[in-house]
Amino acid sequence: MTPRFEFDIAASDGAARTGTIRMQRGDIRTPAFMPVGTAATVKAMKPETVRAIGADIILGNTYHLMLRPGDERIARLGGLHAFSRWTRPILTDSGGFQVMSLGDLTEQSEEGVAFKSHLDGSRHMLSPERSMEIQRNLGSDIVMAFDECTAYPVERDVAAASMRRSMRWARRSREGFDSGADHAGRAALFGIQQGSMHEDLRRESSEALMEIGFDGYAVGGLAVGEGQAQMLEVLDFAPGMLPADRPRYLMGVGKPDDIVHAVMRGIDMFDCVLPTRSGRTGQAFTHDGPLNIRNARFKEDVEPLDADCRCSVCGEFSRAYLHHLIRAGEILGAMLMTEHNLAFYQQVMAGLRGAIAGGRAEAHARAFLSRYSGAN
Amino acid sequence: MTPRFEFDIAASDGAARTGTIRMQRGDIRTPAFMPVGTAATVKAMKPETVRAIGADIILGNTYHLMLRPGDERIARLGGLHAFSRWTRPILTDSGGFQVMSLGDLTEQSEEGVAFKSHLDGSRHMLSPERSMEIQRNLGSDIVMAFDECTAYPVERDVAAASMRRSMRWARRSREGFDSGADHAGRAALFGIQQGSMHEDLRRESSEALMEIGFDGYAVGGLAVGEGQAQMLEVLDFAPGMLPADRPRYLMGVGKPDDIVHAVMRGIDMFDCVLPTRSGRTGQAFTHDGPLNIRNARFKEDVEPLDADCRCSVCGEFSRAYLHHLIRAGEILGAMLMTEHNLAFYQQVMAGLRGAIAGGRAEAHARAFLSRYSGAN
Repeated sequence: MTPRFEFDIAASDGAARTGTIRMQRGDIRTPAFMPVGTAATVKAMKPETVRAIGADIILGNTYHLMLRPGDERIARLGGLHAFSRWTRPILTDSGGFQVMSLGDLTEQSEEGVAFKSHLDGSRHMLSPERSMEIQRNLGSDIVMAFDECTAYPVERDVAAASMRRSMRWARRSREGFDSGADHAGRAALFGIQQGSMHEDLRRESSEALMEIGFDGYAVGGLAVGEGQAQMLEVLDFAPGMLPADRPRYLMGVGKPDDIVHAVMRGIDMFDCVLPTRSGRTGQAFTHDGPLNIRNARFKEDVEPLDADCRCSVCGEFSRAYLHHLIRAGEILGAMLMTEHNLAFYQQVMAGLRGAIAGGRAEAHARAFLSRYSGAN
Repeated sequence: MTPRFEFDIAASDGAARTGTIRMQRGDIRTPAFMPVGTAATVKAMKPETVRAIGADIILGNTYHLMLRPGDERIARLGGLHAFSRWTRPILTDSGGFQVMSLGDLTEQSEEGVAFKSHLDGSRHMLSPERSMEIQRNLGSDIVMAFDECTAYPVERDVAAASMRRSMRWARRSREGFDSGADHAGRAALFGIQQGSMHEDLRRESSEALMEIGFDGYAVGGLAVGEGQAQMLEVLDFAPGMLPADRPRYLMGVGKPDDIVHAVMRGIDMFDCVLPTRSGRTGQAFTHDGPLNIRNARFKEDVEPLDADCRCSVCGEFSRAYLHHLIRAGEILGAMLMTEHNLAFYQQVMAGLRGAIAGGRAEAHARAFLSRYSGAN
């Protein structure tokens, strides 16, 4: 019988690890990149294409889905998998981050947050209990604890108070999740480490989370404007504070080079809107770094986006054609750029997995980063 | 060896015919519907999907392509097929219709038309010779003669003068096309019958075209606001004036019921932006008539768009999901609605072909139209 949630680490190389998370809806090869499917769709991608480019799991946004089409409607329609026809695992965030960045916050207390929808001004609330209920209605496979997103930069005592509230909410999330026995028997719950840039707060947060106990642990509160150097400083100590035998998920990260650096520091899972969002506006990620296909120098360039990319977009279409499509605002441009970017990210992950398994992670990372940061 | 252009009529049933146009880039089963690929893309569709839903040929717009990315650039990039990766036949219009409807006309004379681009105000001209040159640069398989699009409604003498100018332009188009011997050895040229709603003008036009001689003949100047009843009145006599052994193409038509009526009157080829354009805004075509997926009654409807449609969208996705996607402005909504609509149109054509071949065209058309016009 397929386990509810199992993490097998096949190989380690320094702090980096590669393995497989086994869940009822399918295996997740780690290190894993999760395409973001905000509103029950990875934008501009059919679910079959998301799978074809190699994604094992996608992310859904609780905040967006609770507002439109509504979590209860999705439950009546059989859950997010049946609704969107993505049959493999889905991780849902808790809604906490997006309610802060998108919603119109009307009240914030120990209980939770009240806010108005950015879509129609309607009033809603989110709390650990409500977030667990929504993620259950969606039929999420990996549920994220509801936490408070600490602003950046922030005073140390504010960061400490915010982290401690998040830890109280982590316990309420655990209880709320467990109260839905049927869903809890199939799904996993991840806790989220906070503490801003402070090592002692990150340690306190980790200990609080381990005391509660989760299936996996996220490093939260990074990629919030601190820059890569400071993020990597935190990643030098934060992942090692979390249980070695559980998956570690760096939320909202990032650029391909961020991901390589983070994997080398022991991170197993990632999500980011960058490949999808910036693809739609013309930014392509390649082994030689990002390029903007709108640039006039591509107008008669018959080469593919990335000669070393194995995706079907690079197998078929020229930079000149993609330049034309994006310049003309054609939907196919958004489709092809998104597909390439997501396929490129999956190839980056596959390359890391192979290098870790082969005991050559350090050399692989160095070569990747050197080429990636070169002029393009 | 594959012929340059051959039309085999396999069966006739009343005025309706079914057969195959054979060209070097592939066969075209008739009656045929050609998806419109305005700007070197059938909007929101990969070329592989356009083929998968059954299209044998697509249409490209000379006006759009000459302005962006430019026909000379496309020629340098190997032609429209290499550029867009659609390997089968492409029919290009002459640019005449769209320069009137989209361009800012600055001069109109016996020589041709001068206009400013709707994109950037740059100055251009179109004439029979220039239109042939552009379509040659694009590498078109079926080239349309350059004609003047007669307004509707219009005085009889204006319609007559316009038609006669179009016939002089048809001869110049023939000469311009033939002057490019290499391209003319691979491609076909169609003439366009004009004459507004007047039977005698349509006859005069047909005779002028046949005197010049073309590979196929289009019925032009319809679907310009006259309504279905008046269009069908013209189609009661116009197709029969054209050579029976050549394909007849009704330009810019139409709704599924228009197409069924026109096939019964001897039309072999169609193009229309309706399935693509209206798909993107939420209109789906079904055997039970059109439906607008934005309608609130679909918000929890788990049925497919059309239970009798064999397309992969209807095989996978619910009305509720498509309702959500279109309401949320998601690109995937435009992709799936477009795919369904184009697949539905191809199924309508396949149904007509089978019914004509089986000698039951009349009963088939009657049953289709009865169900299509029913309440949905």
